[in-house]
Amino acid sequence: MNQSRSDRSRRASGPATLREVAERAGVSLATASRVLNGSTRVVNPELAARVDRAAAELRYVSNAPAQALARATTSVVGLIVHEVDDPYFAAIAAGAMRVATGSGLLTMLASTFRDADREVDYVRRFQAQRVRALLLTGSGRADDGGRLGDALAEFVERGGRVAVISDHALPYDAVLPANERGGAQVARLLHDLGHRDVGVISGPAELTTVRLRLAGFCDEWRRLGGELPDEALCTADFSRAGGRSACVELMERRPGTTAIFALNDLMAVGALAALPDLGLLVPRDLSVVGFDDLWFSADVQPSLTTVRLPLEEMGARAMSLVLDAPSNRPHRVHFPAELVVRGTTGPRRSTG
Amino acid sequence: MNQSRSDRSRRASGPATLREVAERAGVSLATASRVLNGSTRVVNPELAARVDRAAAELRYVSNAPAQALARATTSVVGLIVHEVDDPYFAAIAAGAMRVATGSGLLTMLASTFRDADREVDYVRRFQAQRVRALLLTGSGRADDGGRLGDALAEFVERGGRVAVISDHALPYDAVLPANERGGAQVARLLHDLGHRDVGVISGPAELTTVRLRLAGFCDEWRRLGGELPDEALCTADFSRAGGRSACVELMERRPGTTAIFALNDLMAVGALAALPDLGLLVPRDLSVVGFDDLWFSADVQPSLTTVRLPLEEMGARAMSLVLDAPSNRPHRVHFPAELVVRGTTGPRRSTG
Repeated sequence: MNQSRSDRSRRASGPATLREVAERAGVSLATASRVLNGSTRVVNPELAARVDRAAAELRYVSNAPAQALARATTSVVGLIVHEVDDPYFAAIAAGAMRVATGSGLLTMLASTFRDADREVDYVRRFQAQRVRALLLTGSGRADDGGRLGDALAEFVERGGRVAVISDHALPYDAVLPANERGGAQVARLLHDLGHRDVGVISGPAELTTVRLRLAGFCDEWRRLGGELPDEALCTADFSRAGGRSACVELMERRPGTTAIFALNDLMAVGALAALPDLGLLVPRDLSVVGFDDLWFSADVQPSLTTVRLPLEEMGARAMSLVLDAPSNRPHRVHFPAELVVRGTTGPRRSTG
Repeated sequence: MNQSRSDRSRRASGPATLREVAERAGVSLATASRVLNGSTRVVNPELAARVDRAAAELRYVSNAPAQALARATTSVVGLIVHEVDDPYFAAIAAGAMRVATGSGLLTMLASTFRDADREVDYVRRFQAQRVRALLLTGSGRADDGGRLGDALAEFVERGGRVAVISDHALPYDAVLPANERGGAQVARLLHDLGHRDVGVISGPAELTTVRLRLAGFCDEWRRLGGELPDEALCTADFSRAGGRSACVELMERRPGTTAIFALNDLMAVGALAALPDLGLLVPRDLSVVGFDDLWFSADVQPSLTTVRLPLEEMGARAMSLVLDAPSNRPHRVHFPAELVVRGTTGPRRSTG
C-alpha cells in the first residue's frame, strides 16, 4: 500500500490529486480539503501553510468542473451497521430509513460484522456508487481517525455528507446518546438497592460506546464509595452469546456477586439465560441491568431493567442531519438516556 | 407509463430494445430474452415465433458487445427485505451476508417496508449499480409476475442472478421453507391438546407465506374434524403490534377461544403481551403458537411454542445459489419446518 502510494506520488504526468497533496504535506485528506477547497472550518495556520506549499510544489489545481461532476449523486443514502441481526442497529436503521423514504430516497444498508477493515471497504464502495450521504451507526473505535477517517474525508471531498451515531473521533455531524449519564444512573440504582458486590459484563474495550458506559458507571460507583476490582469486569462479544459466557465467567471468578451491569441488553439477555443453569434466581439472588431498551426487553422474564435510548429517533435524526443543508461546523445532537426499572432488579438479598 | 412506452415504441431512430420487442410480441421480457439470447430454457413455440417476428419487424439486433459491457458487474450483492427491524429478515440477512463475505463480496440491503412499488424501485436501483445478484427474501405476493417480474427479467437479461426465499410466482432459484407442513403440525398439536375453539391471527392475505401457513393449518384442521369459522381468523400487520390488535379483536369476537395460532412469532409475542390485559393466563386459559422460532422466542415468558425454520441457513443457501454457476432450470431447495413445543401450549382447560 505504501509502495503504491509513493509510486503514485512520483509519477511524472497527470494532475496531482488532493490525496497526493495531503501526503506531501503530511496532513489528513480532510485537512488538505479544508485548506484548498474553501471550507470555512478553521485549520491550524501552520498546517494550512504546509498544504499550500505542497499544492504549489505539485501544481495542484482545484478542478471545479471535475469536482462538480464527481459530486453528482444518486437518490441513495448508505447506512453502515455493525451487525444486521442486532436489534439495536435494526431500530436505528428503521428510524433512518423512514426519514429517507419520506424524502423520496432509497437506503442501502451494509453490515461490517464488527470488522473495521470492512467498514472502510463499504465507505469506498458506497462512494463508487455515488450515494449522497453515509450514516455510520455503530460505535466509534479508538482508531477511527486512521483509514476510516481518510475514506470518509475523500467521500466528503466529493460532495458526500456524513453523520455518525455515538462518539467517534471524526469531524462530522453526530447523534450522541447519553451513554455516560446512563451508566451513572445504573450505578446509583444498584447502590440504592444495597448492592456492593457488583460485576460488569462488557463488550470490547475499543468501542467508544463501551468505554463511555463503563466510565459513567465506574465514576459514579466510586463517587458513592463503591469498589470495582479488575476481576469484576468480564469482557466478551457485545452480543447475547457474549453476555452468557461473560456472566458464567464472572460468577466463577466472584461467586459473591449480587448484581450485574451488562453494557447492552443483548448481553443482559444472555446473562438471564445463563443464570438459571447456575442455580441463581433473578432478582432474588442477583439483579441484572441492561442498556438500550430494545423492543423485546420488556417481554423477557423477568422483564429487564435497563437504560432506554430512543434508537428510532436517533436514526431518524441522523438521517435528517445529512439531508439538511450543510453547516460550517458539525452538529452534535444529544439524546437523553432514561433508566427504566422493571423486574430484574431488587434489593440485595440479606445474608443467610 | 403506457404513454411513454408507446412513445418509445414509435420512435424513428435508435436501435430497438429487447423491451420493445417483448411489448410488440405481447410476451414478458424474460420470454423475449430466452428466445433471442440463446437461453436453453424451453419457450412455447408459438410465443417464440411471435418474438422472432417482432424482432424482425423492429430490426432488433442482439448486441453482443453492448451486452458484455452491460453485464460487467461489481462485487456487490443486493438483498431486499420487507422490514429491516423484523428479526426474521435479520436472521436470513445474517446467513446470506456471511456467505457473501466468505466469497469476498459485499452485501447491500434494502428494506421495502412491505411496499411492493418500492421493491420494484430497489430492483432497478440495484441494477443501475450493477450488483451481480439479487436476493428477494420477503414473502412472494399474488401479483409478483407483474412489474416486479419485469424488473427482475431485465436484471437477469443484463447478466444478473436472482434467488428468492419463500414461494414467488417467479422463474428463479428459490429457497422454500415448509410453510404448509408447519401449519399442519400446529393443527395436530392443538387438536391433540384437546382444543376445538381455535383462532388464527394472520398477516396480510396477499403474502404467499401467509396463504401457505394458513392453508397447511386449515386443511389439516378440517381433516381432523375441526371447524374454523370466518370470524375466527383475524388479519393485521405481520408484526408484534399487528399480533396484539388481532388478538384483542379475536377475543372480543370469540371469547370462548382456547388456543391461538399466530402466523409468525412477532404476532405471537404481540398476543402474549395483550392477553394479561384481558385477564387471561397462558397456557392455563389459552394456548399460543407462533411460527419461525426467532432468536428471542425461547426468552419470552412463557417461552413460545412455535415452528422452527432454519432462517440463517436459508439465507446462506440462497446466497450460495446466486454465486454458483447458473443452471438451465431454476433450483428449488426445500427446507424443513420443525415444531418446537415450549411453555405457551397446554391442554384445553376443563370447563368450570
